Amino acid sequence: MPHLKFKEIERAYGFDEVALVPGDVTLNPDQANIDFTVKNFILSIPILASAMDAIVDPAFAIKFSRLGGLAVLNLEGIQTRYENPDKVLNQIAQTPEKEVTSLLQKIYSGPIKEKLISQRIGAIKQAGAICAVSITPANTKRLAPIAKDAGMDILVVQSTVTTARHISKSYRGLILPELCQQMSLPIIVGNCCSYNAALELMRTGVDGILVGVGPGSACTTREVIGVGVPQITATLNCAAARETYLKESDKYVAVITDGGIRTGGDLCKAFAAGADAVMIGSPLAQATEAPGRGYHWGMSHSHPALPRGTRVRVGTTASLEQILFGPTSVTNGTQNLIGALRTSMGVCSARTIQEMHKVKMVIAPSIKTEGKYLQAIQNVP
Amino acid sequence: MPHLKFKEIERAYGFDEVALVPGDVTLNPDQANIDFTVKNFILSIPILASAMDAIVDPAFAIKFSRLGGLAVLNLEGIQTRYENPDKVLNQIAQTPEKEVTSLLQKIYSGPIKEKLISQRIGAIKQAGAICAVSITPANTKRLAPIAKDAGMDILVVQSTVTTARHISKSYRGLILPELCQQMSLPIIVGNCCSYNAALELMRTGVDGILVGVGPGSACTTREVIGVGVPQITATLNCAAARETYLKESDKYVAVITDGGIRTGGDLCKAFAAGADAVMIGSPLAQATEAPGRGYHWGMSHSHPALPRGTRVRVGTTASLEQILFGPTSVTNGTQNLIGALRTSMGVCSARTIQEMHKVKMVIAPSIKTEGKYLQAIQNVP
Amino acid sequence: MPHLKFKEIERAYGFDEVALVPGDVTLNPDQANIDFTVKNFILSIPILASAMDAIVDPAFAIKFSRLGGLAVLNLEGIQTRYENPDKVLNQIAQTPEKEVTSLLQKIYSGPIKEKLISQRIGAIKQAGAICAVSITPANTKRLAPIAKDAGMDILVVQSTVTTARHISKSYRGLILPELCQQMSLPIIVGNCCSYNAALELMRTGVDGILVGVGPGSACTTREVIGVGVPQITATLNCAAARETYLKESDKYVAVITDGGIRTGGDLCKAFAAGADAVMIGSPLAQATEAPGRGYHWGMSHSHPALPRGTRVRVGTTASLEQILFGPTSVTNGTQNLIGALRTSMGVCSARTIQEMHKVKMVIAPSIKTEGKYLQAIQNVP
Amino acid sequence: MPHLKFKEIERAYGFDEVALVPGDVTLNPDQANIDFTVKNFILSIPILASAMDAIVDPAFAIKFSRLGGLAVLNLEGIQTRYENPDKVLNQIAQTPEKEVTSLLQKIYSGPIKEKLISQRIGAIKQAGAICAVSITPANTKRLAPIAKDAGMDILVVQSTVTTARHISKSYRGLILPELCQQMSLPIIVGNCCSYNAALELMRTGVDGILVGVGPGSACTTREVIGVGVPQITATLNCAAARETYLKESDKYVAVITDGGIRTGGDLCKAFAAGADAVMIGSPLAQATEAPGRGYHWGMSHSHPALPRGTRVRVGTTASLEQILFGPTSVTNGTQNLIGALRTSMGVCSARTIQEMHKVKMVIAPSIKTEGKYLQAIQNVP
Repeated sequence: MPHLKFKEIERAYGFDEVALVPGDVTLNPDQANIDFTVKNFILSIPILASAMDAIVDPAFAIKFSRLGGLAVLNLEGIQTRYENPDKVLNQIAQTPEKEVTSLLQKIYSGPIKEKLISQRIGAIKQAGAICAVSITPANTKRLAPIAKDAGMDILVVQSTVTTARHISKSYRGLILPELCQQMSLPIIVGNCCSYNAALELMRTGVDGILVGVGPGSACTTREVIGVGVPQITATLNCAAARETYLKESDKYVAVITDGGIRTGGDLCKAFAAGADAVMIGSPLAQATEAPGRGYHWGMSHSHPALPRGTRVRVGTTASLEQILFGPTSVTNGTQNLIGALRTSMGVCSARTIQEMHKVKMVIAPSIKTEGKYLQAIQNVP
Repeated sequence: MPHLKFKEIERAYGFDEVALVPGDVTLNPDQANIDFTVKNFILSIPILASAMDAIVDPAFAIKFSRLGGLAVLNLEGIQTRYENPDKVLNQIAQTPEKEVTSLLQKIYSGPIKEKLISQRIGAIKQAGAICAVSITPANTKRLAPIAKDAGMDILVVQSTVTTARHISKSYRGLILPELCQQMSLPIIVGNCCSYNAALELMRTGVDGILVGVGPGSACTTREVIGVGVPQITATLNCAAARETYLKESDKYVAVITDGGIRTGGDLCKAFAAGADAVMIGSPLAQATEAPGRGYHWGMSHSHPALPRGTRVRVGTTASLEQILFGPTSVTNGTQNLIGALRTSMGVCSARTIQEMHKVKMVIAPSIKTEGKYLQAIQNVP
Repeated sequence: MPHLKFKEIERAYGFDEVALVPGDVTLNPDQANIDFTVKNFILSIPILASAMDAIVDPAFAIKFSRLGGLAVLNLEGIQTRYENPDKVLNQIAQTPEKEVTSLLQKIYSGPIKEKLISQRIGAIKQAGAICAVSITPANTKRLAPIAKDAGMDILVVQSTVTTARHISKSYRGLILPELCQQMSLPIIVGNCCSYNAALELMRTGVDGILVGVGPGSACTTREVIGVGVPQITATLNCAAARETYLKESDKYVAVITDGGIRTGGDLCKAFAAGADAVMIGSPLAQATEAPGRGYHWGMSHSHPALPRGTRVRVGTTASLEQILFGPTSVTNGTQNLIGALRTSMGVCSARTIQEMHKVKMVIAPSIKTEGKYLQAIQNVP
Repeated sequence: MPHLKFKEIERAYGFDEVALVPGDVTLNPDQANIDFTVKNFILSIPILASAMDAIVDPAFAIKFSRLGGLAVLNLEGIQTRYENPDKVLNQIAQTPEKEVTSLLQKIYSGPIKEKLISQRIGAIKQAGAICAVSITPANTKRLAPIAKDAGMDILVVQSTVTTARHISKSYRGLILPELCQQMSLPIIVGNCCSYNAALELMRTGVDGILVGVGPGSACTTREVIGVGVPQITATLNCAAARETYLKESDKYVAVITDGGIRTGGDLCKAFAAGADAVMIGSPLAQATEAPGRGYHWGMSHSHPALPRGTRVRVGTTASLEQILFGPTSVTNGTQNLIGALRTSMGVCSARTIQEMHKVKMVIAPSIKTEGKYLQAIQNVP
């Protein structure tokens, strides 16, 4: 009676389970080049701000662009549904935990106003900032042209899981190759987490892909529908697809790790796993400039029938500039993210992000270290 | 001095240790066909309600059948031992934690009344519902004919561990091939968790097997007798047996994962591991219609000499319809289970449950994610 | 620059990390034969009571022998150092946590009185019980003849780690082959945990070996000196040595797993890993008859310069008979240990302990299950 | 579509994840030779005290040298920046948790005074003690000659990560082969953690290397920059490099494990992983003689822009002599470290540190044991 195997399952790894190994040579942090290029745009820091209403509003986008990064405005959120977003954001911050999901469901069922799309994008462009916006695949055909007319520089087509093909009875899915041709501006699409899905997306002609399904701190996708791939493995998969696609097409598509990054340590690990840039939410939600008033919630949290997410209280801890560039007296890795990246690259012998891709990693669960720390504390007589 | 190995031990996995990988194509949830067939019965949702007194009474069975599922009535529980089950159920709900095991031992030592068997089954059939009942192997020869006369549609023969052969000094074990012939109605047998045991059960002629030993939230089998196999591995084993048996006999026996499913995420993973249907307890114990009054306990909890289990307080959270079909404002995966299954199938490119069997899974312990969430919370100044 | 490996390290497993797989046939528990034989003694239950002062005094030994097991009296403990042990035991139970190690160091530095050795053994023999005693290797040459004269039936030579050869500047080590010849009664030696060490001990002519270094609940050997092998792996190693030795000599040496067993589940797993019997401490320390007054401490806890251990509060929960044979209303696996063993053997198709050695095990960390239980609890609204 | 792998990642292990296996023979602890040799110095205990201001001041260094070990004075810390270090140390101990990082940043920005370097070294030499000091690579060219003139015996060149080559725009890195020639006294360099980096350092002519990046109890390097290798793996890597270098050059370079050692158990494991000596911080910070007044902090904690570390409250528990040699009534492994090492070597059949390198280890996560202990406690009725 030979035992037939029904299915092979491989181990996947998240940020907390790996660590970087120092290199054989060390560099001064000032030697590290951390530029990030997506089509014709070159950003001086490889960080995107998440398309979440708790993170990005026009004022935040302008500030973040000045600091060298790329903030993505959610075109289907509070900013484009409400004339006065501050009132709505205050209401979210003041609602008790157990009522907040219903409130979000109600808020996000309000209509998207085309006039507001133009206004918000206009405000960003007027300030001289680069303007990136996100739209879900289902609304892209309708809203992307409006956004382009208003001055959008970069289009992010984003949903929990986006693939090159979507099959539906009720409507014809978004055709990405057509979109790329029509728009003629940089397009980033996501999220995805496997080699095949990433490769198929790259073959549609997009310029960047977002990597990450189910890892964010405000996300409960895995509890609700069982789906999710830890970020180190997801990034390794998609980086492998990038290399394959580079060989077959000679085009370098940016891999952007999105979700689950809480500290400088996580951020450095994403690059070592193959990311060209990272998209972050909760670290920026702690900024004075963040519209979330110390709270953070995800895009699937407001789904009318199957909400996925939690509102996380992150607090307001420092200015955006200090979170990105320090200096800081905070030692838990949540401030001076760019200083951390440069220091890590120096320690790991990486002059560029692409050299960072070659840094050695080990599997080393961090729960042990925490235990140690606790014990040290408890040894006090 | 060569080191002889005494025994090989392989790794087994539970729900919390795996996650599903999105597919290369996405489907709209409305594309998913989730029918479940067992012999001549086709159910519109692939969910069985556990044969536990905290979950199924005749009223619950009728409602659950109307919603498309299959509730299994425990023929050796409170419903068939007591004329007035409500009184007994109230007593259980009102007894303090540390006295409840003794109380259950006393309650479940009362005699099973044949008259009540007919009454309970009659009530279900009269309402036009499909009637499934469970009997332990030791009582099957005596009680199954009574149940059949009363109108039972589907027979579930269930104990903690049921095998094709049982050896005893004191009585002749149940002969499953004989039973299958005599009853001429669908027979589901369990529980089992290994390839060989499942295959032997299938060869007796049964129509479905229940998979799961020791995984339920109200179960302490593993603490008490050391026995238990985590559900993903158990389901993979039994699904492999189903494929082997299909090749040798051309008969497709349903594999039903029973126990340990708390959320939509767990439920989706069971199907991806090879289940044709799932049997669930604690998620349904939270329904307004559940007779357990917000409590949940297992079938081995009342063993007179070696009780195994705990009474778990699950609370009453929503109507049965909302738990199954939503909509919901709860984000922890305990409501809108069918919506979750359809969404998961859409994300994973599965048009049918059998395509769901082919979805890729990764090993990805969820304890890390929880740690992350906690840290995010603790970062609040 | 090829990377030379300095050392290979293999994974070892403890009780909490494995579980038993049900068999393809089930047996009624009454079919299980659980006899344990060591040389000319046949015990009706395969359990030894640990040679610890919190567990075994003469009265306990007599009771335990009547119930079918074998209690081992520590010949270098309170019983042989003090005329009135009850006074000393009361003092230990009443001393605050942070002073108890110093107290134990003081108590165990009192002289061993040869007269008391004879008295204690005499009391046990007079009651018609089998008398087993433990002596450390360093004291065996001096104390064993006294014990034998007093009527000892079985000699246990025990220290944290005992090997076939001990090298010292200051004294000539115990020569086990000589001891076996001189004593001409069953000799059990321990503790050990590796294949080679077990095999060398067996070759000295002993009748049983104790398996377990560092696993007990009252033991901190691993924290203090880094040494310890989890019990499933230790038992598998020593059982493999038993099979090798059986082939080379045709003598079957008993393998007795000692330490770390808290529940019926742990006990069943020890047998499945290859144990012929188990030696248990903390489950028996909870008996009304235990001299520890609800406390439990280990033999290395009183070392004058490098104490290893903690005094654990276990409470007094039931009579010895109930802990061994039930019935019980406790569901955490700490009562009705023999009922649990028989049930486990029935579920796993094992008619004898030697068939239990062949039962399949899987690696399945139990921490997940606990997490689940906690979550179920926390779902309460 | 073959799946290209982007990167291989291997598992790395820390102290808490391994345990030592007893040997086939046991030795009396008095048989163990624990001498440690670095160039022309032979120390009677293989322990270095960390170059941290909470551990080593001149008085501590003198005492530690008398007891047989080697204390390393931080030449860039409080002792060489302040005339009156006690005042500064008091201030650190009295500052609340959330203000202490800023305070450290301020304190460590004060100027290093060459006069104080000579004074501190002079005080140690005058007492007849061996004097070892640590300097960062960037300051070595300037400060090492001053220290040598003042009487330094052993030079430790130390930073978080030190490699044989450092690349910078702003200054020419330290050339280790030149330094070794100029100084003509024993040089120890660190920290490193991989085979290649260790081998390259050895080839520069140094006499010892410090092993450990990110493992200390007062260190948050991993959270902040993602870098860190658990100590067992780091030590195994560097010990392998030592063997390679020994073959190619016939020179034996000392491998010193630095960081993360909290207990005697950890210390014994470091030797079994290949260490010739260990450098410890937190266990010594608990000594009455330690200048930290019951607190402990790391060298990267005071970085002006990217501080990494926490101030840990360790308490003051015993004299230095008792921590090293006992006797003790503490059972958590923090006292009588040398007694623990000798006992461990006896149990593991190791007569010398080099025989300890050959002791067998197993992977055995200790979190299980802790869980067990907790459960035993919770069983109390």
